[in-house]
Amino acid sequence: MATEAAAPTARERERDAMRRAVALSARGLGSTSPNPVVGCVVLDTAGHVVGEGWHRRAGGPHAEVHALAEAGEAARGGTAVVTLEPCDHTGRTGPCSRALIGAGVTRVVYAVADPTPAARGGAETLAAAGIDTEGGLLAEEAAEVNAPWLTSVRLGRPYVRWKYAATLDGRTAAADGTSRWITSGAARADVHRLRAEADAVLVGSGTARADDPHLAVRGVPGAVQPLRVVADTGARAVRPGARVLDGEAPTLIAVADDLPDAATAHLDGHAEVVRLPRAAGTGGPSGHGSGPGGGLDVAALLGALHDRGVRSVLLEGGAILAGAFVAARAVDRVTAYLAPALLGTGPAALADAGIATIADVLRLTVTAVDRIGPDLRIDAVPVVPAIPAVSASAPAVHMPKES
Amino acid sequence: MATEAAAPTARERERDAMRRAVALSARGLGSTSPNPVVGCVVLDTAGHVVGEGWHRRAGGPHAEVHALAEAGEAARGGTAVVTLEPCDHTGRTGPCSRALIGAGVTRVVYAVADPTPAARGGAETLAAAGIDTEGGLLAEEAAEVNAPWLTSVRLGRPYVRWKYAATLDGRTAAADGTSRWITSGAARADVHRLRAEADAVLVGSGTARADDPHLAVRGVPGAVQPLRVVADTGARAVRPGARVLDGEAPTLIAVADDLPDAATAHLDGHAEVVRLPRAAGTGGPSGHGSGPGGGLDVAALLGALHDRGVRSVLLEGGAILAGAFVAARAVDRVTAYLAPALLGTGPAALADAGIATIADVLRLTVTAVDRIGPDLRIDAVPVVPAIPAVSASAPAVHMPKES
Repeated sequence: MATEAAAPTARERERDAMRRAVALSARGLGSTSPNPVVGCVVLDTAGHVVGEGWHRRAGGPHAEVHALAEAGEAARGGTAVVTLEPCDHTGRTGPCSRALIGAGVTRVVYAVADPTPAARGGAETLAAAGIDTEGGLLAEEAAEVNAPWLTSVRLGRPYVRWKYAATLDGRTAAADGTSRWITSGAARADVHRLRAEADAVLVGSGTARADDPHLAVRGVPGAVQPLRVVADTGARAVRPGARVLDGEAPTLIAVADDLPDAATAHLDGHAEVVRLPRAAGTGGPSGHGSGPGGGLDVAALLGALHDRGVRSVLLEGGAILAGAFVAARAVDRVTAYLAPALLGTGPAALADAGIATIADVLRLTVTAVDRIGPDLRIDAVPVVPAIPAVSASAPAVHMPKES
Repeated sequence: MATEAAAPTARERERDAMRRAVALSARGLGSTSPNPVVGCVVLDTAGHVVGEGWHRRAGGPHAEVHALAEAGEAARGGTAVVTLEPCDHTGRTGPCSRALIGAGVTRVVYAVADPTPAARGGAETLAAAGIDTEGGLLAEEAAEVNAPWLTSVRLGRPYVRWKYAATLDGRTAAADGTSRWITSGAARADVHRLRAEADAVLVGSGTARADDPHLAVRGVPGAVQPLRVVADTGARAVRPGARVLDGEAPTLIAVADDLPDAATAHLDGHAEVVRLPRAAGTGGPSGHGSGPGGGLDVAALLGALHDRGVRSVLLEGGAILAGAFVAARAVDRVTAYLAPALLGTGPAALADAGIATIADVLRLTVTAVDRIGPDLRIDAVPVVPAIPAVSASAPAVHMPKES
């Protein structure tokens, strides 16, 4: 005999609302930095959804404000379900804790506590105002979507996702350098989604020279263009007319701080230039790019990006730059697009990462495996989380929640 | 309201029986060569299972004989469900077509038609005897389990499955040569299952020298040990005391046919030695092993194994030998165990395979992705199937079904 479904309990309604709020929060990925992504759902006294919102961009209203505006008077006596502890500091819209109190909600359920000194304390303020306040609901799901921001708060540097596309045997091009196309159109389209979710897209000089990449987002409606960054130590890889200089998205060229001014004259008016120290030790494992002095210091590069509000970086290669990031333990997530194909020779996905023996291998945990067209997308994170930046330019763990 | 499940139709019972027969057939993998694997289920007049059997080893009774023996008089008027068209030639137990007629079954359902000139014709014989005979039921599933045998019949050489274990970036060892362990114990145990399903396990001289591998099956109850084969062109890699010479399984050492007799004297009494031509072109893409003349001719090696009744080979490396097989288009299936780990340097899984440009990449289709402990097992087959052996020693497509 079929059983009529029982009406959901208040708890079930809150879980459903939080699941929805987490999904809403993800819509902000790539456009809220240096703020976190946040989603909010408001339930009325009967437990029905009466308002939804998410934080859309830094400087704009917080998720709670959007959701409360949509709910209007229906919020009174109801419950606000929000993915991050409501902020308690005054930005352009005032503290969310005050907005919630003012709207008359009698209960607030949040997923993740706010770790930033400036913004946290919202839960205490709410409780002091007599609002039934509870944290931790679906915290893991909410934290996963907010991983870039939470990681950048913890480490004081942007969250780095290294993406590469290779054959099953780990080659990114054939012996003669040809590589179009190893992965399918579906996989390449998926990369544009990753770019749209990142604040910056980063490549090294070898990739800039070999591929003349554009690095902007294509085909993702509503996407905010990421900052395009080229680690061009010697200022010789990005030449006038390079696609990355076309103005479709902002561009930053990072060069060595010992270059003469004239070395970057060809970039004037086309891109921002930042001068950074070279990695210690010429030709050492973290050196990327050729020429004396090796590549740029990874921590300094990440610090410079952090200073510009970048909280998430999509590292797109090449192998030498990726090796320097792995050596610096500055990779927080790996996304490998593996094409079911074999080459046998040709450049490898990852170059020297300072790992000489099996005991020093960088162990990862696979978090997802998906089929993208004929290819596989493998997501993995280090078993031992990455380390904070050590550059003097990015010491702060303090992170204002609103820019 | 719960609906009581309707009794299965005759067709549903036959499908269920075929599914069971396919599973039974797989139990024979690794022990029936040069015969195929076959499973059989006998249903009585009411459609109930009254007999099951599978072909257990070459020279032993066929699947049908086992199943009919178990069914006894209950087979009369019933249906035999079998994964391969019943044979029509006289081996040690006589043609299965006769056995089925004698047992009084009135219907025979098989999955895959027998492609061999000597054995085929069973369906015609059965039909001529008034038995309702039908082919093609679950043919794809049955053919998948029998892929090694069907491929060897079609190509006139053993089916080759290349297995490798590597990091996500395609390295099989660290820069200093250490590799214990890249993959997990679970993945390594799974390899023993692959060995048990193969007739022969093959490695090159580099692997023999570096790893001193044992190559026998451990931890698989009831497994028939495969033939251990080392492609040791110069007869210098397998030395007295090598683990592969320990007598736990038969061993074949393949050497170049231009070596003096004295070059293999140290193997006398410890392993069979076969002398084969070197690959054409010294240092060419299919050359494996060092020394003048490169490696052995792949087709000749496969022909020699085919002559010994080997119908499936598990190619376990190393990179140079695998490159020669890929170059010869003699890889029928790839099984990659990928550990979620990064090395950056160290030997690659696959060496030169004669592929110089992206247009010549060997495209595969992923057939399965499984998690084995923390690792991934990726199975893939070439988009364009492999080519037959061209060696004069293995020209025959004809395959006696019973040895």
